[in-house]
Amino acid sequence: MGSTTTRRWVLAERPAGIPDANTFKLEEADLPELADGEARIRVTHFSLDPGMRPALSRDTYVGATPIGSLITSAGIGIVEESKDDKLAEGDMVSGGFGWQSALVIKARHCVKHNPALFRDKVTPTAAIGVLGIPGMTSWFGLKNIAELKQGETVLISSASGPVGATAGQLAKLMGAGRVVGIAGSQAKCDWLTSEAGFDAAINYRDPGILEDAMRDATGGADIYFDNVGGEMLDAAINVLKPNGRIAVSGQLSEYNRDEPHGIRNTLPFITQRLTMRGFVVLDFVREFGPAAMQMAQWINEGRLLYREEIVDGIENAPEAYAGLFKGENFGRRLIKVS
Amino acid sequence: MGSTTTRRWVLAERPAGIPDANTFKLEEADLPELADGEARIRVTHFSLDPGMRPALSRDTYVGATPIGSLITSAGIGIVEESKDDKLAEGDMVSGGFGWQSALVIKARHCVKHNPALFRDKVTPTAAIGVLGIPGMTSWFGLKNIAELKQGETVLISSASGPVGATAGQLAKLMGAGRVVGIAGSQAKCDWLTSEAGFDAAINYRDPGILEDAMRDATGGADIYFDNVGGEMLDAAINVLKPNGRIAVSGQLSEYNRDEPHGIRNTLPFITQRLTMRGFVVLDFVREFGPAAMQMAQWINEGRLLYREEIVDGIENAPEAYAGLFKGENFGRRLIKVS
Repeated sequence: MGSTTTRRWVLAERPAGIPDANTFKLEEADLPELADGEARIRVTHFSLDPGMRPALSRDTYVGATPIGSLITSAGIGIVEESKDDKLAEGDMVSGGFGWQSALVIKARHCVKHNPALFRDKVTPTAAIGVLGIPGMTSWFGLKNIAELKQGETVLISSASGPVGATAGQLAKLMGAGRVVGIAGSQAKCDWLTSEAGFDAAINYRDPGILEDAMRDATGGADIYFDNVGGEMLDAAINVLKPNGRIAVSGQLSEYNRDEPHGIRNTLPFITQRLTMRGFVVLDFVREFGPAAMQMAQWINEGRLLYREEIVDGIENAPEAYAGLFKGENFGRRLIKVS
Repeated sequence: MGSTTTRRWVLAERPAGIPDANTFKLEEADLPELADGEARIRVTHFSLDPGMRPALSRDTYVGATPIGSLITSAGIGIVEESKDDKLAEGDMVSGGFGWQSALVIKARHCVKHNPALFRDKVTPTAAIGVLGIPGMTSWFGLKNIAELKQGETVLISSASGPVGATAGQLAKLMGAGRVVGIAGSQAKCDWLTSEAGFDAAINYRDPGILEDAMRDATGGADIYFDNVGGEMLDAAINVLKPNGRIAVSGQLSEYNRDEPHGIRNTLPFITQRLTMRGFVVLDFVREFGPAAMQMAQWINEGRLLYREEIVDGIENAPEAYAGLFKGENFGRRLIKVS
């Protein structure tokens, strides 16, 4: 018969700084009966997303997360029961399932995994990773926001994370001349250059002046693909060539601050003719299909790698989430529910 | 015979904050003999440009102004003698003449005034104002940087200044649906709405919260045409609609700071899909001609106004320049040399 209850993480209090044990509360709730058009899903994995951090503390474009409500995230799962023609028991699906073990949801709010996509090296978890929001953020950030052109030099922050690592590899596959990543450990930097095909990598924890390291490694960048914001963005601005573009993909360093740092280094916007552009990847949702097909092909050809860090047990979600802001993760961090 | 010497303002010391009497030094120098291809110009007017302020203190894209060297600006003048076929005695010309009374210059570095442009309501001083760099900044900032579309709402800072006032009027002439200006006195605001055709104007010195006033007056803006930067930019960011654009035309509030303010309010770049783009108007120099012809026509039709504040006497340049940063000027401030 399957699940009749769900274990779910809800927001207990608004965090100041990095979320901790007090931020979240694990509770158990009964699942409702299935109505027509609905399905019951047993969640196998869900994602931990830095991008939902602002909504824990303040109002955002998706609204503030209410106290007591489910923590949002992408998830994958298996259909246990369906009252909709499009889904059958045993189907693999993904969707915005939240931090929980099971749910009843409208079938049209799930994406059924296409077997043409999920085969060979492409695991089901790719649906919420390299073929999900992070991978699409890399793709459309490069193509539509940064408007990458053949032969250009791309600098990427948080480069071993799910967005950055995909962005760097896609940039090369799309024709970039040189790709440089910034990451927080020697092991991450080694992986970027020896496995993921980056031309160079910078460990931002190394002694020395980060801006100089950026300049040396890039020789001047056309694009800064930014997942971090803050002081690192100020430094990168000084390394951009005339007509350089900043794609604002994420602002990890801002999410836990009380007072924003923002950008202090704005004079080069005029003198260097810079463009900075932010985006919400869901605006491109109609174009996700062809992008995913191309990326799945590159994955199977061994030309596009993705790293996952799967943390076992729903009870470990808060600690694993906090670790994202401490640079602990190396690849897409997921919770395996059971 | 004409001028044999020039009186010229040079940089005496690098200013901290708003330039003052110690920043500049007035000196007299002999003019060289004319070589082939050169002309001697008696300068009648020169401009006072906030945009050259950064180069007085630090290195910029045009380099730092060296101590002891001439202060740069646009000027207009009359040819006194020429050893070039393209210029004759009595011709009106404009160019980058600097803060001085006379000079010898290569004829090809002067622009001879086209009588088709400078007739009826178009005065010679328009060459370094509405038909010069400030006016071109307005034109290309709207068209090429902000990419103004029919019916859009445009918010403009420093709106009674030479760039802002022209930008507001051009925006309406180019099809904007609503244009709102921000200025520093009631008299300036009254002029914007009663004379220059702005739909609304905000006095930033009024009590109350500037961001609220911006929101009320615009109903949400598609474009922020920014001449100021700083806290006003932070407020304007909150008033931009999704897919809003910031054209960075100037950063007046930053030029005299030791520590930059920059932008603190960067989270909306992602959530509101904002684009911020800086530019150097000289990049569009090949397109200046048609833009000037169109603007001259609008001036003569009474549809495009420009205000000038002509300060008499070269010795008054430093004080008149400092006043630009105190919001004293109301229109393009020029020095009449003699």
